[in-house]
Amino acid sequence: MKAVSENKCFGGVQGVYSHASDACGCDMTFGLYLPPQAGNGPVPMLWYLSGLTCTHENAMTKAAAQGFAAEAGIALVFPDTSPRGEAVADDNAFDLGKGAGFYVNATQDPWAPHYRMWDYLAEELPALLGAEFAVDLDRQGITGHSMGGHGALTLAMAHPGRFASVSAFSPIANPSRSDWGRKQFSAYLGEDDTAWARHDATRQMEAVGFDGPVLVDQGGDDQFLDLLKPEALSQAMAARRQDGVFRMQKGYDHSYFFVSTFIPDHVAFHADALGL
Amino acid sequence: MKAVSENKCFGGVQGVYSHASDACGCDMTFGLYLPPQAGNGPVPMLWYLSGLTCTHENAMTKAAAQGFAAEAGIALVFPDTSPRGEAVADDNAFDLGKGAGFYVNATQDPWAPHYRMWDYLAEELPALLGAEFAVDLDRQGITGHSMGGHGALTLAMAHPGRFASVSAFSPIANPSRSDWGRKQFSAYLGEDDTAWARHDATRQMEAVGFDGPVLVDQGGDDQFLDLLKPEALSQAMAARRQDGVFRMQKGYDHSYFFVSTFIPDHVAFHADALGL
Repeated sequence: MKAVSENKCFGGVQGVYSHASDACGCDMTFGLYLPPQAGNGPVPMLWYLSGLTCTHENAMTKAAAQGFAAEAGIALVFPDTSPRGEAVADDNAFDLGKGAGFYVNATQDPWAPHYRMWDYLAEELPALLGAEFAVDLDRQGITGHSMGGHGALTLAMAHPGRFASVSAFSPIANPSRSDWGRKQFSAYLGEDDTAWARHDATRQMEAVGFDGPVLVDQGGDDQFLDLLKPEALSQAMAARRQDGVFRMQKGYDHSYFFVSTFIPDHVAFHADALGL
Repeated sequence: MKAVSENKCFGGVQGVYSHASDACGCDMTFGLYLPPQAGNGPVPMLWYLSGLTCTHENAMTKAAAQGFAAEAGIALVFPDTSPRGEAVADDNAFDLGKGAGFYVNATQDPWAPHYRMWDYLAEELPALLGAEFAVDLDRQGITGHSMGGHGALTLAMAHPGRFASVSAFSPIANPSRSDWGRKQFSAYLGEDDTAWARHDATRQMEAVGFDGPVLVDQGGDDQFLDLLKPEALSQAMAARRQDGVFRMQKGYDHSYFFVSTFIPDHVAFHADALGL
């Protein structure tokens, strides 16, 4: 593992690190914010999964989460959104290939060799973080934006007991019934719909739900509402009597100006679930 | 004037606008954050001047000031750092020409026709903002980062009574005695050192000072300390008995991770001076 950069921020350190990933078969880069409290021992950790076209960097520079994380004493990890490098398959479209891994293990060519973001985030990266940094893997929360909200919700529901809490900003909520999902699932996973179910937050909410609190924020003026399908997730949460809150935020769009507005609430929500 | 974008943010609106500038003889773009309180009438305004290579966008997306501005009820304006467009002279270096206007009125060719950032910020843009938006020109503060800290300090000291308060993040503090300054002043203003004095914060602090409180934050591990020369400004502030605070912040560098860490203090400092 190599430190790409480390900048002091709110008394802690905003780092960027790269490492050879076995899961993805390429070098991967991630951002990690360690609050000042990490100087005294392992701290809880909040995952932030990013959306289409993003790298590890977007949320790290634009979501303004570090100050609130420092206040709560929680680490923030900002993974990349796909495998990277010249050997990795890609597509000209912004919503397939690099920057658009959709947090699955691809089974179809040409994607299968490297597009294994599910294993990377569920297994490899947490183990690396636990071994190399002062983070406490027994106290984790997870959040994300858009494609990353989809990733956060599906990872959380597939790993009962791992995350104390899950939240999402304008998640791709029902991908197997949206053009943000069907296209990518067909490419990465093939046409068998049963392989898609565990990667669809609404269907997982219907099937199993989440064993902790859920917070979802959705901008009411989001330009992608028809692709995100928030009503499907909201309906599934209510039908299951899921412990959680779904908030339609009037006038907000899909941008980081929306994310940064509500990130204080999300950090506080996870801190509360983590007993901080 | 044309609205380029408007995004809801912390209950207010983060806008980007472009307009034909008489001062610069080209189209100029600026960011303006209006807090929710602007819906009820004109609000005070804090200028944020950016550093080398920046546009109107950097601080708007990375400084994380909007939440604190919304809390205080203060508008934020993010001007560009130079004239723009194909007709505008430029240089291959990152620290001369576009993105490096240094907040002066150039008198030398080829810069003189467009590089008039001083007039743009001192006269044209405030008049436009006052006419088009709910901002109160009788209640202004000014801040900036690096080259923008230089601009904020020199504009503030040259306009007694206009700004209630001035602050700066790692300003270019003594440009007429630094390679960040001599090169640009020679190019824009010519070799006559007396024309440089009003554009040197340290020399202005020695000559006239500021008629209100001053706050300066400087990262102790800033990679550009030798070019910024903070010790010259600190010495001049103390020698003048200037109402103000100079803070050397241990371990911080020149990045926006430093700016975002202390922006809450700066917004609160200006809000206090503005009686909010």
